[in-house]
Amino acid sequence: MRMKSLSCIFSIELVGHKMFRKLVSLNEAERILRQNFSPQPVGVEMAPLSEACNRVLVKDALSPINVPSFDKSTVDGYAAKATDTFGADEDQPIVLKLCGRVTTGVPPRVVVENGTLVEIVTGAPLPKGADAVVMLEYAIRKQNRVFVHRPVSKGENIMKAGSDIKKGEIVQRAGRVLSSRGIGVLAALGLAQVEVYKRPKVAVLSTGGEIVEPGNTLPPMRVYDINAHALSAAVLECGGEPINLGIVQDDVHQLEVALKKALDLADVVITSGGVSAGPKDFLPQVLDMLGKPGLIVHGIAVKPGKPTTIAVVDERLVFSLPGHPTSSLLMFLLIVRPILCQMSGVQRSAPLTLKAAAATKMFPARGRRTFVMVTLACNKSGRLLASPVPLGLSGAITTLANADGFVEIGEDKQFFNAGEEVTVYLFESRDGFWKGVAETRVY
Amino acid sequence: MRMKSLSCIFSIELVGHKMFRKLVSLNEAERILRQNFSPQPVGVEMAPLSEACNRVLVKDALSPINVPSFDKSTVDGYAAKATDTFGADEDQPIVLKLCGRVTTGVPPRVVVENGTLVEIVTGAPLPKGADAVVMLEYAIRKQNRVFVHRPVSKGENIMKAGSDIKKGEIVQRAGRVLSSRGIGVLAALGLAQVEVYKRPKVAVLSTGGEIVEPGNTLPPMRVYDINAHALSAAVLECGGEPINLGIVQDDVHQLEVALKKALDLADVVITSGGVSAGPKDFLPQVLDMLGKPGLIVHGIAVKPGKPTTIAVVDERLVFSLPGHPTSSLLMFLLIVRPILCQMSGVQRSAPLTLKAAAATKMFPARGRRTFVMVTLACNKSGRLLASPVPLGLSGAITTLANADGFVEIGEDKQFFNAGEEVTVYLFESRDGFWKGVAETRVY
Repeated sequence: MRMKSLSCIFSIELVGHKMFRKLVSLNEAERILRQNFSPQPVGVEMAPLSEACNRVLVKDALSPINVPSFDKSTVDGYAAKATDTFGADEDQPIVLKLCGRVTTGVPPRVVVENGTLVEIVTGAPLPKGADAVVMLEYAIRKQNRVFVHRPVSKGENIMKAGSDIKKGEIVQRAGRVLSSRGIGVLAALGLAQVEVYKRPKVAVLSTGGEIVEPGNTLPPMRVYDINAHALSAAVLECGGEPINLGIVQDDVHQLEVALKKALDLADVVITSGGVSAGPKDFLPQVLDMLGKPGLIVHGIAVKPGKPTTIAVVDERLVFSLPGHPTSSLLMFLLIVRPILCQMSGVQRSAPLTLKAAAATKMFPARGRRTFVMVTLACNKSGRLLASPVPLGLSGAITTLANADGFVEIGEDKQFFNAGEEVTVYLFESRDGFWKGVAETRVY
Repeated sequence: MRMKSLSCIFSIELVGHKMFRKLVSLNEAERILRQNFSPQPVGVEMAPLSEACNRVLVKDALSPINVPSFDKSTVDGYAAKATDTFGADEDQPIVLKLCGRVTTGVPPRVVVENGTLVEIVTGAPLPKGADAVVMLEYAIRKQNRVFVHRPVSKGENIMKAGSDIKKGEIVQRAGRVLSSRGIGVLAALGLAQVEVYKRPKVAVLSTGGEIVEPGNTLPPMRVYDINAHALSAAVLECGGEPINLGIVQDDVHQLEVALKKALDLADVVITSGGVSAGPKDFLPQVLDMLGKPGLIVHGIAVKPGKPTTIAVVDERLVFSLPGHPTSSLLMFLLIVRPILCQMSGVQRSAPLTLKAAAATKMFPARGRRTFVMVTLACNKSGRLLASPVPLGLSGAITTLANADGFVEIGEDKQFFNAGEEVTVYLFESRDGFWKGVAETRVY
């Protein structure tokens, strides 16, 4: 083994103390993942409209009714026959006889005959015989006579039955994240509750002997746990339900107990830390013991995020992300998020991107797909520039926190020149459906 | 009154049955609103980290500690003096004496002398005397001798104390909506909870005799209530806490009772319907009676959304939006949302916009700022086109639901030509801070 290790030193393969590790490309990792696990929605449930915002619709919403279900006035005024108003103008009003009124919510009894009109309010059903509504502003009533100062054409100020939504029409597509606008459409159909996908439960735990739960005093040589909190929030942001299991010691038995509990409680498990090549990194071994097929990816040729490990344990996914906060959140966005979106039933989701000019030359790590955290700013001539947050500190949470997004440099790309156009993937755009409108939405 | 009405007919002023109404421009409406009401956060509260995502931070978060609080290794390997490794290469390793190991979370007792090194894992504190770490992959251990196959420079693979966050440094600014990245930074400081702004409570009610609560069967000539549901969801989307009070009959007494209740329960009240010029639209009167100064805006020169009415009742804001769903949600976005953002403590928020070419000529309504709902699609040559959703059906919820965003046509603008570049305001981008990165963010 030692000699093999030596021979591999300069070919980007790694030998850990305990088990062989072979880096795969990001694309290959995704292929292997999907070969071993087919992300499916975890279930469905009914949600009242008041709780349906940001949830994902299970079936196309078909309208059981015409909306509106009757011809209605869209203004306050007088329902009339359009032909009766032809020729009316400001100075030469046409006088029509007022023969009743209709109000909202009540079937009209009155009929509009030639030479007559009927008072009507916004939203009220059009009485028989009328085919247009003269707006209040253009008519003056004197007792039972109305002076019409402007002609209306047939259909003017009327919303025809079914003109908003036709019976049987699909008004909201399955797999969409419901917004206020979607909620409005569902209310229009008379739905008080809708079938939505259950949110996948995601157990999150951090491993490592040096980390301490925030809120406690920090002993010497310790650091506060960042990842369990940041990853739980990231799960929330993409529609999952986080179960924060906190810190687990990097010990075979404790890891095994914690992972079994996590697999019992959740649909997906995310750990962080404990997957580098260190002598105390037992996590890959434990994952491989827990069930079949076990470890499927153990190291990805990306920077940052190289130690990222993926296991499938009896049809449940376990993502073991690096301990470095920037690495783990980035790998979450790149690998975990798309899976969670699919398990949430979201049919289309793409990151929001924009184009900017590289502020400085950007180099990839040799042979690894490289993600450069960048901040955005306009230069004096109004050009949007993407400036790298200093590299090499993938352990730094501030690297990620200060970035506006990241630039991807492909394995085959030598560099981006200063001034070259780059695509910036923006952080924090959480609406599955709307993500990517700016650039990548599929029309 | 009637004669005055006539003289005003063609000058876009309106006289309702009950009270005089003078349209003001959208800018003027905003000015009047802010003259009568200064939006302030409604209060602060502590939130545990697990509930702080999407909340707004009250104070700049200053770090009470260095992060990390000690020099630490960012890799697994051997802590050494960099100078001891100079000249090492693949074929000519330098042999150093292993004199101990340090692990995470424990203060190191061992000291690195010249010609020695110490085993170290990722995250462990650097022992005294060492100034670099040789990665495991480039070293081979044989008993207590380690063959170093690659030199390291001073500081390599080390994260210095305070290099991520310096004690006293501001790591997260007040007024920001907290994301997973922000949560991570706060966890790094050891905070288990943070001070966030309370979410403004917003009472939502719909008025009108023709509307029926979804879930009930629809009697003839009735329509389901859309607005209370869509507006409640819209309140949620911008960080408020909706209180859906449902449907209120358009009757002076019932309106008065409902509005008093709403004003008691909530920081802001939003009604919809009952503000056009119809004979049954008592709402403006009631609003004017309830407290001082009462009605401050009664009609805005916009299309759609003209009947929009604003009142201040004893220092509480009441927005009375039109009954038409598209109008009311649009006016929510334009007028209510910025106020709610400020009352949520969000310091910067701007809608997400993008540039597209007008697919067809777009005309404004004469003398009114006009908002054209558009869908986006790429043409064959890849150009993004904004196509108007057919105008004139502002009562239609589908107009809004099918749109990707809207184009604003100023009062002074004659039209947009087909092919002319227009700014599209996108719907659904909820992150106060991130909104507008694409175009309008203030750098």
